[in-house]
Amino acid sequence: MSKPLILVTNDDSIVAPGIRTLISVMKEIGDVIVVAPDSPQSAMGHAITINNTLHIDKVNLDPDLEHEYSCSGTPVDCVKMAVREILKRKPDLCVSGINHGSNSSINVIYSGTMSAAVEAGIEGIPAIGFSHVDYGWHTDFEPIKKYVKKIALEVLHNKLPEGVVLNVNFPKAEKTIQGIKVCRQAKAMWMEQFDKRTNPQGKEYYWLSGEFVNQDKGQDTDEWALENGFISVVPVQFDLTAHHAIQIVNNWDL
Amino acid sequence: MSKPLILVTNDDSIVAPGIRTLISVMKEIGDVIVVAPDSPQSAMGHAITINNTLHIDKVNLDPDLEHEYSCSGTPVDCVKMAVREILKRKPDLCVSGINHGSNSSINVIYSGTMSAAVEAGIEGIPAIGFSHVDYGWHTDFEPIKKYVKKIALEVLHNKLPEGVVLNVNFPKAEKTIQGIKVCRQAKAMWMEQFDKRTNPQGKEYYWLSGEFVNQDKGQDTDEWALENGFISVVPVQFDLTAHHAIQIVNNWDL
Repeated sequence: MSKPLILVTNDDSIVAPGIRTLISVMKEIGDVIVVAPDSPQSAMGHAITINNTLHIDKVNLDPDLEHEYSCSGTPVDCVKMAVREILKRKPDLCVSGINHGSNSSINVIYSGTMSAAVEAGIEGIPAIGFSHVDYGWHTDFEPIKKYVKKIALEVLHNKLPEGVVLNVNFPKAEKTIQGIKVCRQAKAMWMEQFDKRTNPQGKEYYWLSGEFVNQDKGQDTDEWALENGFISVVPVQFDLTAHHAIQIVNNWDL
Repeated sequence: MSKPLILVTNDDSIVAPGIRTLISVMKEIGDVIVVAPDSPQSAMGHAITINNTLHIDKVNLDPDLEHEYSCSGTPVDCVKMAVREILKRKPDLCVSGINHGSNSSINVIYSGTMSAAVEAGIEGIPAIGFSHVDYGWHTDFEPIKKYVKKIALEVLHNKLPEGVVLNVNFPKAEKTIQGIKVCRQAKAMWMEQFDKRTNPQGKEYYWLSGEFVNQDKGQDTDEWALENGFISVVPVQFDLTAHHAIQIVNNWDL
């Protein structure tokens, strides 16, 4: 049997330790093609580049790989480029990450890592976004490699339900991993504080910052899992219809 | 009773005819505050600005308005700025648009217009994104103003279920409006074609382009509604958990 074809991307850029780790794991289970951003694209959500040009460059950061490309666009652009322009056939799996920082809970919606996985899902490709709660550039990914491999193999084996991709987050390195937990995303949000400063010309500007607030006490959430040392796996959908609300709005006087 | 406080934003920038129309309608029903991008932000999805600074400027395009601001960020940044930095209290309604171009079906996920509405929803603000299928800058919004007003008033009156915002699209101007239809988003996608060109220095670059493909024949979809002259209203959720898939993935050997 031929090896599975695996597309690897991320949002921290092609040189990030997280994607290099992900590539090393995927090489053990399939033929790997990398198409990843040439610069950091964190928090780009599902943005695509329509008002600017796109560039791709063949690179060779990993001498084992024949097909490795850096792209000037967003993570979603990378997936579109890979599928339409670079790949000869639809890949068997798309993996995105390993993100340097959490994409649990509401963060899934801001995340370039997860948006790349979602875009692959829209294309009908089984897809997984991997993120590590520790956001440091020098996070030790070694202890989680076996779990990344296990989850990828399970997705290749079982496929995913139509319209679903996986959002996988790894707990802080200081926690002993208790196992893998399939969860719902916690109902949480960011309380932003804008840090107001003055530039050398005297004009005010802001930096977005803030505090993550989780008021969801459920033990079936990704936040609970991560807090308790579990790897969280949330099935994520991209049909955004709130089906339960259709009847409610239908009862209005529209 | 005091008038409702209404936050208005968009993704086509603060000078777009679509948002100026939306402002004119909202002034009839409430106190209006505008915080909108200072440049076009189409297809920015749920992107936020974390690796760059943000600027806001008080502007006065509409002499009736005391509070009108242009912001250097994305549509989602605009909502965050409005809620955390500009507004004294939580608004009663947030409206985004009127977008110059369709945000029906899968386009909701790429749309800056809808991401602004979703961000307001995350903040617990009743929110609506309005889009017109005609993408021209000089689209005649006059015939749809009464529907924009009606839908906004209904949301103010009924509120929205928790975790739900509305995605409203108006059909092509050439169609006679048949009424308002509450729908699900059609299962459709973009088949991209990258237009490959060569720059003056001989280097290749690409423009993203493509064709929208709808293979969803359902008559309960937004695409069907728009095609048949209805205004489509899709309730949209931002909890992305695919709840139905949790049990499926739980049965895997993880």
